Amino acid sequence: MAKEVTNREDNYSLWYNNLVIKADLAENSAVRGCMVIKPYGYAIWEKMQHTLDKMFKDTGHVNAYFPLFIPKSFFSKEAAHVEGFAKECAVVTHYRLRNSSDGKGIEVDPDAKLEEELIVRPTSETIIWNTYKNWIQSYRDLPILCNQWANVVRWEMRTRLFLRTAEFLWQEGHTAHATRGEAVEETMRIIHIYEDFAKNWLGIPVLVGLKTESERFAGALDTYCIEGLMQDGKALQVGTSHFLGQNFARAFDVQFTTKEGKLEYVWATSWGVSTRLMGALIMAHSDNNGLVLPPKIAPVQVVIVPIFKGEEELKAMLEKCGFIKQEIQKRGITVKIDDRDNLRSGFKFAEHELKGIPVRLALGPRDLQNGTIEVARRDTLEKQVLPQTDIADYVEKLLDEIQLNIYQKALKFRDDNSYIVDTYDDFKMQIEKGGFILAHWDGTLETEALIKEETKATIRCIPLEGDMEAGKCMVTGKPSKQRVVFARAY
Amino acid sequence: MAKEVTNREDNYSLWYNNLVIKADLAENSAVRGCMVIKPYGYAIWEKMQHTLDKMFKDTGHVNAYFPLFIPKSFFSKEAAHVEGFAKECAVVTHYRLRNSSDGKGIEVDPDAKLEEELIVRPTSETIIWNTYKNWIQSYRDLPILCNQWANVVRWEMRTRLFLRTAEFLWQEGHTAHATRGEAVEETMRIIHIYEDFAKNWLGIPVLVGLKTESERFAGALDTYCIEGLMQDGKALQVGTSHFLGQNFARAFDVQFTTKEGKLEYVWATSWGVSTRLMGALIMAHSDNNGLVLPPKIAPVQVVIVPIFKGEEELKAMLEKCGFIKQEIQKRGITVKIDDRDNLRSGFKFAEHELKGIPVRLALGPRDLQNGTIEVARRDTLEKQVLPQTDIADYVEKLLDEIQLNIYQKALKFRDDNSYIVDTYDDFKMQIEKGGFILAHWDGTLETEALIKEETKATIRCIPLEGDMEAGKCMVTGKPSKQRVVFARAY
Repeated sequence: MAKEVTNREDNYSLWYNNLVIKADLAENSAVRGCMVIKPYGYAIWEKMQHTLDKMFKDTGHVNAYFPLFIPKSFFSKEAAHVEGFAKECAVVTHYRLRNSSDGKGIEVDPDAKLEEELIVRPTSETIIWNTYKNWIQSYRDLPILCNQWANVVRWEMRTRLFLRTAEFLWQEGHTAHATRGEAVEETMRIIHIYEDFAKNWLGIPVLVGLKTESERFAGALDTYCIEGLMQDGKALQVGTSHFLGQNFARAFDVQFTTKEGKLEYVWATSWGVSTRLMGALIMAHSDNNGLVLPPKIAPVQVVIVPIFKGEEELKAMLEKCGFIKQEIQKRGITVKIDDRDNLRSGFKFAEHELKGIPVRLALGPRDLQNGTIEVARRDTLEKQVLPQTDIADYVEKLLDEIQLNIYQKALKFRDDNSYIVDTYDDFKMQIEKGGFILAHWDGTLETEALIKEETKATIRCIPLEGDMEAGKCMVTGKPSKQRVVFARAY
Repeated sequence: MAKEVTNREDNYSLWYNNLVIKADLAENSAVRGCMVIKPYGYAIWEKMQHTLDKMFKDTGHVNAYFPLFIPKSFFSKEAAHVEGFAKECAVVTHYRLRNSSDGKGIEVDPDAKLEEELIVRPTSETIIWNTYKNWIQSYRDLPILCNQWANVVRWEMRTRLFLRTAEFLWQEGHTAHATRGEAVEETMRIIHIYEDFAKNWLGIPVLVGLKTESERFAGALDTYCIEGLMQDGKALQVGTSHFLGQNFARAFDVQFTTKEGKLEYVWATSWGVSTRLMGALIMAHSDNNGLVLPPKIAPVQVVIVPIFKGEEELKAMLEKCGFIKQEIQKRGITVKIDDRDNLRSGFKFAEHELKGIPVRLALGPRDLQNGTIEVARRDTLEKQVLPQTDIADYVEKLLDEIQLNIYQKALKFRDDNSYIVDTYDDFKMQIEKGGFILAHWDGTLETEALIKEETKATIRCIPLEGDMEAGKCMVTGKPSKQRVVFARAY
């Protein structure tokens, strides 16, 4: 193998870190908790961005850009919001450095202290609603459907590449509406866009549901989420969409004149997905050979490897590879020829597997004679020798099949690891094995906190679909409207 | 008119600010020196991004992402670099807020002081070369051709929307090479990509040249630039490409093993364009009616305005407009129908002019009868009534013509405002009228500084093309290798 990756079964956490580093996705930087996203990792992120961006635009959203910095006083305006975010903020206090007195370096210039400290945005509700105040006067100014692609900073103490970093990249949508109904509709529209994207692009089946009060976004009335199940049986929150009610409009005094001439506060939503999607993608599908990428999100979908000895053989081979590449490219598929002359084919194969390239075509001297080609698929690691004729058509269909297979495998894994549990004893036993547990809960913060303390499991969501039957809380026996989903989570 | 804009001739600076605000491109935020880029402004920026990004990728570059923060100590490692940037940095000193003792707000938690302060990146050479150290061992690891799209912060004291803001968006390329020759070649490749983009997309003719030592990027051996001439006769630096030599490789100890087994320092370039391009675009072409956008960079290229009274008329009209829209869209052109029912056509026309939409089609009741349509072009404000037949073909050609005309108009303006001057007296007189002045200079820092002090003119560049004849410095009479370009600049 090109670069060794720890076995997933031996140490899942180390396997994940190994994979991120060795597949050249990202690495830790010299700045605590901040990562460098390497070109291959960034190329995957760009594919995610382009896809989501189109989905947002197709539903009437536009992009904009708001400042990186937020005046400290803005945070105090929404009480729940400040509680949620003040504890983990990077704070800018000065705007200049100077040569240090010992002449050996530079130091902060004490004369350049800001009158009011600036917070590096952990999320942008406050600065955006302060801006919307000037944009909104009448119902004719609504809705506002803005999104921004940006970096944000949350000073996390324990960080992990992609899953939890001090700085991360994300998109944050911030919409303003004339009615509660429209805002709720928008909140739902977005969570279903996220679901669609996770399922049909990333190949990750997700549960769509409502967060409990304790897991809600700081400042929201309702937080909807999509939750995925990783291969170690832990849940990962993949995206969230918040119905903010009139909280931020009140905090920043954003009112509008209705058609009827009345003055009312504006209704709001916000929603986001981040580079955490990269973590989800890696953990949901990869194996001990490396990444497994769904074709729709793979920067390189097909790699062609000529196997040759000497210049003469290479020349004939490259001509054939070039022809096949062209045929495949015509179908809108991204193909690369790996003709590096300093590496053995075995090494190359291992590297392509490590990087999760969905389809590998290999062409040896015998293939050249026989008009055949070896086709290897990354998801199942199966190989076949096929005639070169119609290989492009075959590859096109194969990519669709791989996309579907990756999803179905993940779906089967989730189904196999979802349990209906009725007693707290069973719950405690089951939670040790990982997976989603559907159980009844009495709806109180106390019971939720108790379960979390005793089992480290949290309520991932109150699902919107599936079994809606009422029952009794597994802990207190009090009435429960429907089963909720528990898991240990990232 | 929809919204009044100050006349360009009366107050160029106010005209510019008016235009940025009233065409909904950007506005000042609550954070000193930081702007909000509004959806329409951001849509133009996105078109610029997509075009440049493709140009970079077509020449072998890849995107990546490096941390927002740079440890303070990194800055001291390259002497010239720290001199250039330390004076204008946002400094993060703390990572937490807490409730203030008076219970009324929040304050910086003194217990959460960082051991080493972090600088919000003003540019990323230092953090990137610290990273490259781990990426580069052998000549086989080279070249590295990374670009990043990011926000950066430079604490400017006097800010102006798009032209000079504390936070701005940009791309920064950072490449690593095995030889001086390759790095120089890359520096030139990029400056010509920028030239191509400015000329053929933004419609701005630019001079390509070398910066003098005093105007060079802090840490570079050579800085190449493209310089545009704005309508008030002032120059604007539109983009720069730096040959960094081995400065950053030495500062961060980045060496590689050559093919021959020797250890050598890596050669570097860096290059960038920013949201300042928006300022250039606005100032180069716009007029007293508002923006004039080259079609290739306009978010909406054609707007169709139905002129109607009452529901019945509107219905027939919209059907026809829809058909024309479809025909135009088929040609890959972005079209919108403006069917807002609460605004008069005159108001709409003024708004479309303000926003610089290249072509406006208007359809009135008489047109519906006669099978005609009114075509208005933004660049010349000319109107024509044409048959509806083949209107899509006509519009397609018209857009090309407008793109060319905007460029040629700007080129003529530059030519009309470029002067060859041989004496310092003439220079002093001429500089008051604005424009580019080509004059001989003795190549010394002293003369350059004297001219700047006495006339506020700087050497914009030592041009790479044009008259290369030697002469005598207009100030000192000492020998000069070629004329250089002076101007007052933004």
